[in-house]
Amino acid sequence: MNLLLINPNTTQRMTDALATAARAAAAPGTCITACQPSFGPASIEGFFDETIAAAGVAEQMRHAPAHDAVLIACFGDPGLDAAREATRAPVLGIAEAAFHAASFVSTGFSVVTTMTRTCVIAEHLLHKYGFERRCRGVHGTDIPVLALEHCDAQGQPLCLPQIEAAARAALAQDRSGAIVLGCAGMAGLCAALQVRLGVPVIDGVSAAVKLAEALVGLKLTTSAVGDYALPLPKPYAGWAQPLSW
Amino acid sequence: MNLLLINPNTTQRMTDALATAARAAAAPGTCITACQPSFGPASIEGFFDETIAAAGVAEQMRHAPAHDAVLIACFGDPGLDAAREATRAPVLGIAEAAFHAASFVSTGFSVVTTMTRTCVIAEHLLHKYGFERRCRGVHGTDIPVLALEHCDAQGQPLCLPQIEAAARAALAQDRSGAIVLGCAGMAGLCAALQVRLGVPVIDGVSAAVKLAEALVGLKLTTSAVGDYALPLPKPYAGWAQPLSW
Amino acid sequence: MNLLLINPNTTQRMTDALATAARAAAAPGTCITACQPSFGPASIEGFFDETIAAAGVAEQMRHAPAHDAVLIACFGDPGLDAAREATRAPVLGIAEAAFHAASFVSTGFSVVTTMTRTCVIAEHLLHKYGFERRCRGVHGTDIPVLALEHCDAQGQPLCLPQIEAAARAALAQDRSGAIVLGCAGMAGLCAALQVRLGVPVIDGVSAAVKLAEALVGLKLTTSAVGDYALPLPKPYAGWAQPLSW
Amino acid sequence: MNLLLINPNTTQRMTDALATAARAAAAPGTCITACQPSFGPASIEGFFDETIAAAGVAEQMRHAPAHDAVLIACFGDPGLDAAREATRAPVLGIAEAAFHAASFVSTGFSVVTTMTRTCVIAEHLLHKYGFERRCRGVHGTDIPVLALEHCDAQGQPLCLPQIEAAARAALAQDRSGAIVLGCAGMAGLCAALQVRLGVPVIDGVSAAVKLAEALVGLKLTTSAVGDYALPLPKPYAGWAQPLSW
Amino acid sequence: MNLLLINPNTTQRMTDALATAARAAAAPGTCITACQPSFGPASIEGFFDETIAAAGVAEQMRHAPAHDAVLIACFGDPGLDAAREATRAPVLGIAEAAFHAASFVSTGFSVVTTMTRTCVIAEHLLHKYGFERRCRGVHGTDIPVLALEHCDAQGQPLCLPQIEAAARAALAQDRSGAIVLGCAGMAGLCAALQVRLGVPVIDGVSAAVKLAEALVGLKLTTSAVGDYALPLPKPYAGWAQPLSW
Amino acid sequence: MNLLLINPNTTQRMTDALATAARAAAAPGTCITACQPSFGPASIEGFFDETIAAAGVAEQMRHAPAHDAVLIACFGDPGLDAAREATRAPVLGIAEAAFHAASFVSTGFSVVTTMTRTCVIAEHLLHKYGFERRCRGVHGTDIPVLALEHCDAQGQPLCLPQIEAAARAALAQDRSGAIVLGCAGMAGLCAALQVRLGVPVIDGVSAAVKLAEALVGLKLTTSAVGDYALPLPKPYAGWAQPLSW
Repeated sequence: MNLLLINPNTTQRMTDALATAARAAAAPGTCITACQPSFGPASIEGFFDETIAAAGVAEQMRHAPAHDAVLIACFGDPGLDAAREATRAPVLGIAEAAFHAASFVSTGFSVVTTMTRTCVIAEHLLHKYGFERRCRGVHGTDIPVLALEHCDAQGQPLCLPQIEAAARAALAQDRSGAIVLGCAGMAGLCAALQVRLGVPVIDGVSAAVKLAEALVGLKLTTSAVGDYALPLPKPYAGWAQPLSW
Repeated sequence: MNLLLINPNTTQRMTDALATAARAAAAPGTCITACQPSFGPASIEGFFDETIAAAGVAEQMRHAPAHDAVLIACFGDPGLDAAREATRAPVLGIAEAAFHAASFVSTGFSVVTTMTRTCVIAEHLLHKYGFERRCRGVHGTDIPVLALEHCDAQGQPLCLPQIEAAARAALAQDRSGAIVLGCAGMAGLCAALQVRLGVPVIDGVSAAVKLAEALVGLKLTTSAVGDYALPLPKPYAGWAQPLSW
Repeated sequence: MNLLLINPNTTQRMTDALATAARAAAAPGTCITACQPSFGPASIEGFFDETIAAAGVAEQMRHAPAHDAVLIACFGDPGLDAAREATRAPVLGIAEAAFHAASFVSTGFSVVTTMTRTCVIAEHLLHKYGFERRCRGVHGTDIPVLALEHCDAQGQPLCLPQIEAAARAALAQDRSGAIVLGCAGMAGLCAALQVRLGVPVIDGVSAAVKLAEALVGLKLTTSAVGDYALPLPKPYAGWAQPLSW
Repeated sequence: MNLLLINPNTTQRMTDALATAARAAAAPGTCITACQPSFGPASIEGFFDETIAAAGVAEQMRHAPAHDAVLIACFGDPGLDAAREATRAPVLGIAEAAFHAASFVSTGFSVVTTMTRTCVIAEHLLHKYGFERRCRGVHGTDIPVLALEHCDAQGQPLCLPQIEAAARAALAQDRSGAIVLGCAGMAGLCAALQVRLGVPVIDGVSAAVKLAEALVGLKLTTSAVGDYALPLPKPYAGWAQPLSW
Repeated sequence: MNLLLINPNTTQRMTDALATAARAAAAPGTCITACQPSFGPASIEGFFDETIAAAGVAEQMRHAPAHDAVLIACFGDPGLDAAREATRAPVLGIAEAAFHAASFVSTGFSVVTTMTRTCVIAEHLLHKYGFERRCRGVHGTDIPVLALEHCDAQGQPLCLPQIEAAARAALAQDRSGAIVLGCAGMAGLCAALQVRLGVPVIDGVSAAVKLAEALVGLKLTTSAVGDYALPLPKPYAGWAQPLSW
Repeated sequence: MNLLLINPNTTQRMTDALATAARAAAAPGTCITACQPSFGPASIEGFFDETIAAAGVAEQMRHAPAHDAVLIACFGDPGLDAAREATRAPVLGIAEAAFHAASFVSTGFSVVTTMTRTCVIAEHLLHKYGFERRCRGVHGTDIPVLALEHCDAQGQPLCLPQIEAAARAALAQDRSGAIVLGCAGMAGLCAALQVRLGVPVIDGVSAAVKLAEALVGLKLTTSAVGDYALPLPKPYAGWAQPLSW
């Protein structure tokens, strides 16, 4: 099974890290190809970043044909609906995947994310997807996305204690039973946090890999009828010319 | 990986058929054990049937310890919350599984089920789970559950044309992109309907198998904290005595 | 008028106490018969307990024919929909009755209940019934159900101060105008709390008695059409054999 | 027990008819006093009529002190919140009472009312009260309120066949199990319709009487704390001067 | 363009102040006429006050014919639907106008109002209009409406510091980006608060003036079809006789 | 006052037409500058088109500094949240503007749009903005966006009769009081339709112009605090390099 992982930002180091995280979750026989847009922001920390990144995801959908499923590895799920029009393979966003996974193992979960200003993006998604009652709180830590990878001399992520503290506070305040990590860049912290917190901790990258494998196993394809039909053929101008159908 | 499939009704033939359907969906290495309660209705076609069947699911949770995940194979997801208290393994209902799967491949889906009187059960679940906007309609056909298996001389299910017609009407009326089959007993019709209708058709039994494999692969367990903590120890009376914690 | 009160748990002392509470609320001429299942948990403090208890309520519906209405005296309303299928007499759950009563006398109410882990059960009911905006908070005290009846030397319930404190905190924090007692076992505390708090305090047992009298007085019966039609006739296996229709 | 029934319109004949309907529902020992505002519309068939009528209800609350509960007998529940501020006795609107009663005996009900233009008033109430999911449809018949009382030579209401037809259509189209009559003036049709339709038919006037008796029996009062506290003392100008607190 | 501003209370000083605020916001060429009911409360601080005031708004709609739009200048929007039936000119409530304006410049706003007991009125409006997710909190200060105009020796409103403090607390607690002033009497504080708080502060009176100018500019009229059709002709009794259509 | 109108598609003829429509609605003294992205689809008829167009809107925000407000003239409001981060001037989408305007003049409105496959985009917006109850239906006509401008020999748009018919059907079926035109390209049909249909017909382009004038008149700016704070400075790659903050 071939999965295309699109990192919507343009930081190669993060694309590599996401590929590593995805491969760690993948079943034997699942092959992960990772890519990133040819343009756009180095990280996604607001609506403007995300809007450009969504177009980057759409651009990278040109790689979709050779794959059995596509993963969008940014917690705002940028370009998800566009990507679903562009292929019949299943497409998953990591926020969506994490929310679904969390709702199977808890009656209510909390999200711990990076910049507080992006909480609203998660809240919009929760509401759009129907998880507004399952999610009991979205909590910002104001750690910049690219600072998530900073480590101490022992290779331990510097942000771990702060994220653990935010998660503990969220569990208590929200009466939650699980934690969703609100950023693709937190994938590497998941196992450690799960041990420390004693509740399920869901990383969207791994969740998306496994759910994609499940959908492919079910031979389900994105519906070709109606709202996700292929884009209508028409001219595209400028750099986007090759994206036209 | 060992999955426990609980058929909440007491019709052995249906338990066998569900096991067959589940095994067809399972990955190599996934072993399905099927069981059914020692008591309760031959089929589930209303609230009363379902309430007894939910207790039957709770009873069968005594088999859970040896398994990596548990599937509840009736479209009303009877006993789901109880089962989640009774084990740390992930537990999935087939309605829940089908709704989640359908929401990955369409902006809106329709449910086609058996008795019209059970539509309200699906509607309650959709609302409880947060899919009330994703699902655009629940449609009864008034085919009794146990009549789903009646076949003609060629082994073709007699109900197929009626269910196909109901699905076509639902797709048009609801402007939907996918069909969810609203009864465990319809598992065998899924492939044929998908070919005929040209849209994704989701059978909850297969969906639950693949999603269970995904959750186990993610090493996620039902949250031991809070709402799904193990039942409190206390005496149980009557036939239920051995169910006490 | 004959009312059947079903205590869904199997603690005879609690059945007796509920009957006493119901009789205190009943009009002259209303006769209360109390019963409890032949099986199931001694108290209901989670989903598992509740699922078995719901089947117990279904079992006890064999007594319904001789009665004008049926009350289910546990705050999770276990088996309510099943019971409504099994008789044309009106059936009321005490949570439902309390929520309705509270919404007539306040713009917003708070629930004070026993174990925090059961708050989610009340929240599911509020959402199912449509009271999710009227109820401004559900608050656990972590008093075990069967400890509610412990009294000091003067016969005063030991839990009263703790419940009063939780109710005061809820009124302030939720900006509420009324308190709903979230457990059948709290019926005996209602009058004292109402005096101490100076706001309406609603006990579901009394509320269900009076609302049942009202529905019987209105000659309303549970709808025989559609979702609450009588269960379909079919074989039931095991101990449940006599429950078959 | 003394109940004050306020007819919010100024048609004496209708006040009398409402009193008769209420007395027919009342328990022995319940005494109904009926009144109507000194000003306002002869019938209520839109927002403008209703706004004046609500002030009329507020005016008539001067009679409340001598009563144990107050009923507002117009299906738009005009002045309900104001009336609740003006007394500690329970106050019920007939739409509210009917919705509550219907939700005890069906999973879903339909409303059949008079002018189509007033459907939106019922829809606003359903939404405000939380019954937007329980009610599956509001249907206008465009019968003027005051034409409801027109009878043929045998004393049969002329509108009965039209309302019966609208109710049958609603039950089928909405998959409903009960009918709520959407106008106080339909009280006299309730029994006949219930026989003809074979489902519970709820008249708000009777429902309000019985629910008021229930609340009084429960010794519940409108919460004096917060949102329904007594009006603040202040000067009122013009004809409203005597309404000042 | 002629705008009719109706102050729903009967305090002439407040009518004058509202006219001044409205004129300050009006475009050149927009002429504001202010009026107040001939009856009703001196200020509106609860449901009872508001119900009488709504009838006062209906009364003042007799002045509507000569105007291009009508503004209702009390934060509870009393009589709004009635006023819309009574004219084809656009009608705006100031709460409604403020909510709309705030939702254009922030993802979430908070309301700061006068008496805590009136928070529920704003909450009902938010819910009715669909802003229940955009508004993240409604906060009372318990400043009486008529005390808003009390000034110190320098002509500075005495309430400014308290309202500023409440707004700051709301912004932090609700994670909001804008403040809506929850009382017509706060119009004069808007500019000063906006400077001090550094976020958009919306006064409903100014917002209603500008939105009314916009709607008139668009040549939009209140729909004459259906729910807002002119009131049906019928007799009105008592002081309301001249209001009949 | 200077307004920047961004046509999110790349059809110059449509940009010109939108500018003309906007200028027709603008007050004297309001100057409209129209632009279109340097890249992207010729028309927007699905999620993929829209995602690229949203990035085009973000690109064109470089012109925002010289303007008092910004309008996004495509009915999917592409890039709206991104644009709001990129300037302190108010930003309006035409769908949003139309929904707000319609809700001031009717209790319920219907949307008539172009391709049926784009109905879901309007439905998502309605839900995101909180108009899901105000809007009673979204109706596709399957007229391609660029075919809207095709005229007969007399210069009459060929699509007018079909859109009129769809609007009539929508008004009847949805019991609506107003029509919202679901495509920027329909601006030119608005006046004719309003005459023919006899209900308010709202064109989002004009509505956005007038609402922008209103917000500028109110001196309201997009909140600089929190969710709409300026984008964080960071490198952007590829063609998007100049968009970096």
